[in-house]
Amino acid sequence: MSKKTTIYDIAKELNITAATVSRALNNNPKISSKTKELVFETAKKMNYEQNKLALALKSGKSYNVGVIVPRIDSNFFSSVIRGIEEELYPAGYHVIICQTHDQEELEIKNINSLLNAQVDGVLMSISNGKLEENDSFNRLLEKNVPLIFFDRKKEINNVSSVTIDDFNGAYMATKHLIDQGCKRIAHLSNNRKLEIFRNRYLGYKQAILDNGLEFDENLIEEIQSKVLEGRSTVKRFLEMDRPPDAIFSSSDFTALSAVQEIKAHGLKIPEDICVVGFSNEPFTRFMELSITSVDQSPKEMGKIAAQVFLEEVKNSKKIKSEKHVVLTPELIIRKSSLKILKNKKAKI
Amino acid sequence: MSKKTTIYDIAKELNITAATVSRALNNNPKISSKTKELVFETAKKMNYEQNKLALALKSGKSYNVGVIVPRIDSNFFSSVIRGIEEELYPAGYHVIICQTHDQEELEIKNINSLLNAQVDGVLMSISNGKLEENDSFNRLLEKNVPLIFFDRKKEINNVSSVTIDDFNGAYMATKHLIDQGCKRIAHLSNNRKLEIFRNRYLGYKQAILDNGLEFDENLIEEIQSKVLEGRSTVKRFLEMDRPPDAIFSSSDFTALSAVQEIKAHGLKIPEDICVVGFSNEPFTRFMELSITSVDQSPKEMGKIAAQVFLEEVKNSKKIKSEKHVVLTPELIIRKSSLKILKNKKAKI
Repeated sequence: MSKKTTIYDIAKELNITAATVSRALNNNPKISSKTKELVFETAKKMNYEQNKLALALKSGKSYNVGVIVPRIDSNFFSSVIRGIEEELYPAGYHVIICQTHDQEELEIKNINSLLNAQVDGVLMSISNGKLEENDSFNRLLEKNVPLIFFDRKKEINNVSSVTIDDFNGAYMATKHLIDQGCKRIAHLSNNRKLEIFRNRYLGYKQAILDNGLEFDENLIEEIQSKVLEGRSTVKRFLEMDRPPDAIFSSSDFTALSAVQEIKAHGLKIPEDICVVGFSNEPFTRFMELSITSVDQSPKEMGKIAAQVFLEEVKNSKKIKSEKHVVLTPELIIRKSSLKILKNKKAKI
Repeated sequence: MSKKTTIYDIAKELNITAATVSRALNNNPKISSKTKELVFETAKKMNYEQNKLALALKSGKSYNVGVIVPRIDSNFFSSVIRGIEEELYPAGYHVIICQTHDQEELEIKNINSLLNAQVDGVLMSISNGKLEENDSFNRLLEKNVPLIFFDRKKEINNVSSVTIDDFNGAYMATKHLIDQGCKRIAHLSNNRKLEIFRNRYLGYKQAILDNGLEFDENLIEEIQSKVLEGRSTVKRFLEMDRPPDAIFSSSDFTALSAVQEIKAHGLKIPEDICVVGFSNEPFTRFMELSITSVDQSPKEMGKIAAQVFLEEVKNSKKIKSEKHVVLTPELIIRKSSLKILKNKKAKI
């Protein structure tokens, strides 16, 4: 190991006591700002930042912020992270990322590892795991580490969140299919213990009921957002006595399965069956048969989550508050659902 | 803050001295393995892991490993990370991820932040930034933090790497285009200060020369792996007096630009122009007009990089060694380059 600069080295350099250096570095109000400036400059010059960890132990500041997502390989989450980074880097924070792969066990490990790395805050979208009570969230709160949820959240006192209006997004998507003349709209749902999937289901249901269509439980299935699971469920739908004439999926990945399976059955999209996804992943746009989807403004979501974190850091720790920001989704209409060309908003 | 378990609490619980507890936790050879076991069990029971950071300061072990990639939103890098995680989690390590967005300044910040978080090692693919000398790599080495490069590497003494044979991948891709009857093959290259792009260029060039075709510098352009940059370059190619009859791109993202631009010009793929990409990103498979690409076994690359890290950790710090693993790429032939159906290996 290389020799580390200590507060004693800085004290010697400046001909002041180590205690003064320590107080200055910890931003003690008893130390003049001139001295503080001098100490910070000298510390920087002497590479004292290499000892930030020791400093973090004392001051509780590491300037690292942890971001936990179910997966990094979805454009939605990587865009949220980009938004977070764009907001936090200029504020002097660094972003470290962990993924849960939707496993609660990994989620707990992520939180513990980030706590051990002394992060100043955690911005996260919870996993789709067992969702049983675990005390990881509480450990963050007990340690006064700000926790902000985005997209997938849990109701916890004093925890802020940034989400989109999933109910409304699903309602718009379903209403659009009804406007296209669809009468039997199936829904590829996901674990409805998670609020986002529950709300997308409820928005779909409400649009069906508001427009006098038959609400058929057989046309709804809770599946994981995986291409293969999507295909087998859509296969079952297509082989029903009264198959659906549209599929609204709570995920673009299973919307893609639907497209593949419908084609494999020799049916035409949108003529025979319309398909709508959720998230506006780039592939929905790039495909020859582009897929209608609901945009969730992920970068905006990340930026706002970061802003909420920065506000919480500024606030006194004695003030407990929570803020809930809900963004408005946008339906992006493409080929996969456009049977009738009356819709002027269509982007093909 | 909740009250933390200290070594004094453990000492009291076991009726031994705090010094003994400390020595046991630091794996001091003077302490019997029976005592060590007892101390570790009690520490675990009393949630002593919450103080891992303090322990890390003493023992130099955090069990966090940092992974630095240019971007997380490419399937290639997210798959490498998956491979790393699958290998490191069972070994008791946790993975934290940072992205550079191909900016050297962020790369330096990433390394510093990971050092401050006391990671036990860094596995990274270097950025495509200025690539000037910076001392971040050296700081890792000075601190004896194992550094392993994957995919994009720099030649540094005692630093191991896992790459694929980019020269051969590019050679195979270009040879395949020649076998399809293409005679003027353009190449979308990227910053050739990076070894991977230099080697892909050299493999392309060698295949052209080995097969008696004209090597034309005008058909080669160094561009960033971005869709818009790709399109303007391909536009230029298509408007040449002697336009190319094939495009070999060192990135799937710019291969996608090529497909879009060629279609916008009313030309047919593969009949008029063949297109081959590099990386085998999932969209190359999902597209209606699937794109031929070179697979780089990213998950395998991640697993091997993790194994090399685990070996280095096991080795005595006095042994300096480096290991260079080179994987074999695989050409995946799809519609975008298959003019002649003689090739039996075609996967459409």
